[in-house]
Amino acid sequence: MSDSQSSIEVCFSPALYPFFHQKKAVVVVTDILRASSAICTAFMHGVEKIIPVETIEEAKLYKNKGFLVAAERDGFVLDFADFGNSPFNFSPSVVKNKTIVYSTTNGTQAIHMANKSSEVIIGSFLNLTATCNWLINQQKNIVILCAGWKNKFNLEDTLFAGAIVEQLLLDKHFYTICDSANASLDLWNIAKHNLIHYIEKTAQRNRLRKNKLDDVIEFCLTPNITDILPVLRGDFLTRMENKV
Amino acid sequence: MSDSQSSIEVCFSPALYPFFHQKKAVVVVTDILRASSAICTAFMHGVEKIIPVETIEEAKLYKNKGFLVAAERDGFVLDFADFGNSPFNFSPSVVKNKTIVYSTTNGTQAIHMANKSSEVIIGSFLNLTATCNWLINQQKNIVILCAGWKNKFNLEDTLFAGAIVEQLLLDKHFYTICDSANASLDLWNIAKHNLIHYIEKTAQRNRLRKNKLDDVIEFCLTPNITDILPVLRGDFLTRMENKV
Repeated sequence: MSDSQSSIEVCFSPALYPFFHQKKAVVVVTDILRASSAICTAFMHGVEKIIPVETIEEAKLYKNKGFLVAAERDGFVLDFADFGNSPFNFSPSVVKNKTIVYSTTNGTQAIHMANKSSEVIIGSFLNLTATCNWLINQQKNIVILCAGWKNKFNLEDTLFAGAIVEQLLLDKHFYTICDSANASLDLWNIAKHNLIHYIEKTAQRNRLRKNKLDDVIEFCLTPNITDILPVLRGDFLTRMENKV
Repeated sequence: MSDSQSSIEVCFSPALYPFFHQKKAVVVVTDILRASSAICTAFMHGVEKIIPVETIEEAKLYKNKGFLVAAERDGFVLDFADFGNSPFNFSPSVVKNKTIVYSTTNGTQAIHMANKSSEVIIGSFLNLTATCNWLINQQKNIVILCAGWKNKFNLEDTLFAGAIVEQLLLDKHFYTICDSANASLDLWNIAKHNLIHYIEKTAQRNRLRKNKLDDVIEFCLTPNITDILPVLRGDFLTRMENKV
């Protein structure tokens, strides 16, 4: 590494983020199954803003004010919400030109946690290469924050982190001495040739199957169906307009 | 899984332990480079008790009372201590029949954190098979607690966790649905055929090299040079007498 290079770190849990926080770093928040995939889908389908909120109470307050609210806990749509956490809920007829309030088990908390860094973007396989290209242009230190599952490590977010690490390390500007980043890359190298098969053993894949919510797996693992990059501006997510 | 089986989970950081704590589980604390390797070495060389303490202040108090004190932070021996964290410090002439007070950057905190579980044992490659055999006999849920580095994930503790997961899953009594356990096993399967080579990329390996403290690497990665199992009894570690 040299002083002119930028570091890549991977944080496996929101509970570990305080040990990774860097004011000048860009944070990529990911929650592959399903929040960050759903957010990318919403922007692909023309949503104007997404307001991520941490608590059920906040989501309810927004609902009472007349907002469209997507909210789930443990995979299930909350009773007061308009819909839940499946990317398929965020169809063009529902979301186009709308502002949506969004609260999930893991992902939306992680977004808030990162908001004191230089920039917070939302990454998923759906916008993988767009995410990497933008990160390469920034030439800043990068922290990939995996939303995990209730503060535990999860494999699917880690694999996505590994996919980013792989692409960034092809650029000599970046380096990593982070064991989590190296572990993510090694796991990605095992999984990448048959991601759907590898994902079979993950806890969240089995949780979604048990709850009959697993129709989204293949979609959420599809790379590069959009080049939109959701970015946090204050308390809402919007699409990044100027990507360089 | 069935009700009669026992689960295996891997916790990658002391900061995540609250999400893994189970009162009835056995916790295996590991800090391969170097605390848990040093503890196993000390018992192999006849130490009677090791009192793990969390803070430098506690270690100093014990020193003032006349105890033999091993204490380090960031790899370096503290000025008031008798010696530091290298397994080579714990030679028979120094430790035989002694009680040693021990405080390290990561490992001794992790030991204290786990003390509300059913049993806390200390695992390292040095006592790998003894650890696995004892765990198999207990038929209890198992949490492998990686000491990590300042609450961050590290690879060497994860590989050791993977080595345990591999052996335990050969016994039909055990199962895992823990993504951290599956990741540990996958990483172990990459690394195990040339552990010394794999360890080259880890942060702690490079930290130790930089500080000229890397003479212990090969020793710390040597499997099964002892069948002693250090166990926490109240506030001190002792050797497990009845291993079945």
